[in-house]
Amino acid sequence: MSGSSFGTLFKVSTFGESHGVALGVIVDGCPAGVEIDEAFIAKEMRRRKVGQSKITSTRQEQDEIEILSGVFEGKATGCPIAMMVRNKDADSSKYDPLRHLFRPGHADAGFFKKFGLRDHRGGGRSSGRETLCRVAAGAIAKLFLAHSGVEIFGWVDAVGSIRGKGVQRNRIEENIVRAGDPSSAPAMEAAILEARKRGDSLGGIVSLRAEHVPAGLGEPVFDKLDADIAKAMFSIGTVKGVEIGDGFNVATKKGSEHNDAFVMRDGTIR
Amino acid sequence: MSGSSFGTLFKVSTFGESHGVALGVIVDGCPAGVEIDEAFIAKEMRRRKVGQSKITSTRQEQDEIEILSGVFEGKATGCPIAMMVRNKDADSSKYDPLRHLFRPGHADAGFFKKFGLRDHRGGGRSSGRETLCRVAAGAIAKLFLAHSGVEIFGWVDAVGSIRGKGVQRNRIEENIVRAGDPSSAPAMEAAILEARKRGDSLGGIVSLRAEHVPAGLGEPVFDKLDADIAKAMFSIGTVKGVEIGDGFNVATKKGSEHNDAFVMRDGTIR
Amino acid sequence: MSGSSFGTLFKVSTFGESHGVALGVIVDGCPAGVEIDEAFIAKEMRRRKVGQSKITSTRQEQDEIEILSGVFEGKATGCPIAMMVRNKDADSSKYDPLRHLFRPGHADAGFFKKFGLRDHRGGGRSSGRETLCRVAAGAIAKLFLAHSGVEIFGWVDAVGSIRGKGVQRNRIEENIVRAGDPSSAPAMEAAILEARKRGDSLGGIVSLRAEHVPAGLGEPVFDKLDADIAKAMFSIGTVKGVEIGDGFNVATKKGSEHNDAFVMRDGTIR
Amino acid sequence: MSGSSFGTLFKVSTFGESHGVALGVIVDGCPAGVEIDEAFIAKEMRRRKVGQSKITSTRQEQDEIEILSGVFEGKATGCPIAMMVRNKDADSSKYDPLRHLFRPGHADAGFFKKFGLRDHRGGGRSSGRETLCRVAAGAIAKLFLAHSGVEIFGWVDAVGSIRGKGVQRNRIEENIVRAGDPSSAPAMEAAILEARKRGDSLGGIVSLRAEHVPAGLGEPVFDKLDADIAKAMFSIGTVKGVEIGDGFNVATKKGSEHNDAFVMRDGTIR
Repeated sequence: MSGSSFGTLFKVSTFGESHGVALGVIVDGCPAGVEIDEAFIAKEMRRRKVGQSKITSTRQEQDEIEILSGVFEGKATGCPIAMMVRNKDADSSKYDPLRHLFRPGHADAGFFKKFGLRDHRGGGRSSGRETLCRVAAGAIAKLFLAHSGVEIFGWVDAVGSIRGKGVQRNRIEENIVRAGDPSSAPAMEAAILEARKRGDSLGGIVSLRAEHVPAGLGEPVFDKLDADIAKAMFSIGTVKGVEIGDGFNVATKKGSEHNDAFVMRDGTIR
Repeated sequence: MSGSSFGTLFKVSTFGESHGVALGVIVDGCPAGVEIDEAFIAKEMRRRKVGQSKITSTRQEQDEIEILSGVFEGKATGCPIAMMVRNKDADSSKYDPLRHLFRPGHADAGFFKKFGLRDHRGGGRSSGRETLCRVAAGAIAKLFLAHSGVEIFGWVDAVGSIRGKGVQRNRIEENIVRAGDPSSAPAMEAAILEARKRGDSLGGIVSLRAEHVPAGLGEPVFDKLDADIAKAMFSIGTVKGVEIGDGFNVATKKGSEHNDAFVMRDGTIR
Repeated sequence: MSGSSFGTLFKVSTFGESHGVALGVIVDGCPAGVEIDEAFIAKEMRRRKVGQSKITSTRQEQDEIEILSGVFEGKATGCPIAMMVRNKDADSSKYDPLRHLFRPGHADAGFFKKFGLRDHRGGGRSSGRETLCRVAAGAIAKLFLAHSGVEIFGWVDAVGSIRGKGVQRNRIEENIVRAGDPSSAPAMEAAILEARKRGDSLGGIVSLRAEHVPAGLGEPVFDKLDADIAKAMFSIGTVKGVEIGDGFNVATKKGSEHNDAFVMRDGTIR
Repeated sequence: MSGSSFGTLFKVSTFGESHGVALGVIVDGCPAGVEIDEAFIAKEMRRRKVGQSKITSTRQEQDEIEILSGVFEGKATGCPIAMMVRNKDADSSKYDPLRHLFRPGHADAGFFKKFGLRDHRGGGRSSGRETLCRVAAGAIAKLFLAHSGVEIFGWVDAVGSIRGKGVQRNRIEENIVRAGDPSSAPAMEAAILEARKRGDSLGGIVSLRAEHVPAGLGEPVFDKLDADIAKAMFSIGTVKGVEIGDGFNVATKKGSEHNDAFVMRDGTIR
């Protein structure tokens, strides 16, 4: 059964495996007329790219994205925008020992149970490399959302046991961990390098913020905005928990502490 | 835009407002031949019913559910199963003062902004009473899943600052809080009554467990089982956080701590 | 697998069997604020009702439709509008001989093969009575479309070998066949009564016209408006052919005969 | 809004314009293990290719299709199968005169009204060239269906006023018109060449047959197999009419003529 599409009006469908021929995405539903700034898309792709600093995976990805359709003279036509990245540093021979072995903590075993066969090279479809398709689609979404003033950004809040305090938005890109609290970045970086030295990795917490979001997005009762965001988050391979707004802190609060009062007057809400 | 359906093969569509004529649900896709045990459905409905103990809302609901279609001589026919509950204790005159006021912590304000009008009586569509439709659909799902041995149950883990330890499955229904740890139940009950006395309410944490689930449910990459569960959870009005498996504890762990090793031999996984 | 919903933004989900407890429909996605004129809905229901004249099925249906949700003080709230008709003249004992027999030309056999069981009473889910749900949903759609000036109407073009010529819109409701060409109505009526006398029935052709439809409805390439209309038409039990626009006449025409020429000037189309 | 996907379990999503960078398709939901015979896919693509005989468009297409994902060691992995054709003979300069003109009988005008801009080169997204994506997806479907013995084939029944009689399946590919009745092929070919000489084109009728189809495909009531087929047919640009089974002939028949009788005995249908 199909499962690689997300969204209804703005539908994102991804394809591709870590060491296959290519990965890509179709964005179907981008409104006609949106200016498709290829330099911006490339910049977003570079931000995701592994191998860009000493703390990420060492795979060298050149990840140049090609727009295949849906854009004419710099603008979205209203038709599907397909984008693709060819795999280059895809020496899969090093994965041969994994042909009959499942890497711990990866989805390979699940794929094998479900499908009876699997592309064992670098995680195949379950590789984190699939997220490059989401970044490309997200770049299109950001270009569209910019029209209505919506801004979305994210940062690292915690790495292992090291936790930052708050976020200084204009300093996130200054450190290679992309910590929101720049004072926590050196310790996070050291912890990652230390774990890597031992052949290990570390968990972490990422925060996302969307600003200037118009009221009324999402639909009651199942397609609430929170519900769709949570689904998207949990569809990323390693995500194990999602909080929105006050999150689990609500559990220990009284109703009176996390409620705000509204009064309607003249048909507007204050 | 529509938003009151969930699922593809087994699709649940709900309707109804807290103080409207009726609430109900269509379950479309229940396999033909499943025995529809009406007594079981009624029992599940009673477990949800408010007014059943001193710690819940005082509204008296009789909530007798009527099956309207899709069942013939005790069995699902493969066609849509519609079920409905007529609203009875629906004296909405007491909500008149709310006609021009939004209750804090409720979704009314959001509905008004989105739709430009609202049914102000008891939360209208955003009322927790909508969950009776989900319970009825869930009862059908349980009857179907029982065939493959799947069991799903839940319990209360925390109320305000009181947290239980673990779960004793056969004792959950013994206490009116439905705490998994029966020793924590009296303190939870006291805390709820205390909050109510002050006209307040309390947050909490609920755990769910599904046992004997066959491998391979869900579809990569967006329709993972975790992702669909998270969406369903966040579609419930007051849910602010969801953890699956190790949840946020993963953040402070090393990769080596939360991974298991697998070896494939002879095509099966051990 | 589910199959009783149609549409995405304006989603129609039906339920119910010919001789079950009730039939009904959820319209999910009707924009908030549309005035829901119950008298209009009732009028549309009466137009569909069998037993209204000597040429239709003799079943007496009282078919009073009840709105269960989604309407508040006469207006759509933006939430699902559920509507229901309870079955009354549903003496199903006369269908007992059919328990082990399939009526020719009905879908019963297909249901039995697919599901392994069936509600044999009056066609069950495959009964033409299901169309009352579509009429109710269509009435809501018409109330919404009236805002943008769209008008939709239909008439009978042919019954058996008798074919009318053209349509006089304001005379369709004058004859019990609802022929578009009033001069053909008496012969059509006679043919139907004659067939019924022999215990037989007749095929026919129905035409539909939508006027003042705004440009740009539907989406390339699969969700074209024509494609969605065709799907809806063919989902009605006995429909075996659909033509749109010139239909099969196009087959015998040259390209130059059925094309119109357009010139764009100043960004508008003439 | 998105509109370039078709299907739920086996979902086909297409992209690309006539004179853009590439056209392609994602097939999401092909069961794992299906052998993906690339030579068969190439053969199906060649059958569609224009420029293969004197009666088709003169555009030279090399249309070599590349599989980008979802296939590993010759078998479908259960993950999305993406396929792509790069546009080569895409000299779009000859379309410059059309930048401010709409070709009669083409969808360009509709696209412009809907989206406010258009890719005017060769029809852009509305070009018949988009069907190459459907042929590629159909080839995957045929490889899958072959496992259950289903065979699907089509032929030309009529060109302009020339109509063939019946079909000789093993002779369809022998004539360049692909007439089912080989004796009608020369006249059809002559009529096409004659129309082309005048700068004109001709309508026609195509028949499709699926054999050995298992019972029970499709879902009541909206997702009937007939309804989905009709939608797919009408989504092809120039299709104006679809008949299934007896089609419009039913209109002139009595119920007793086009009904078959069934008797159920021992739970099977004869």
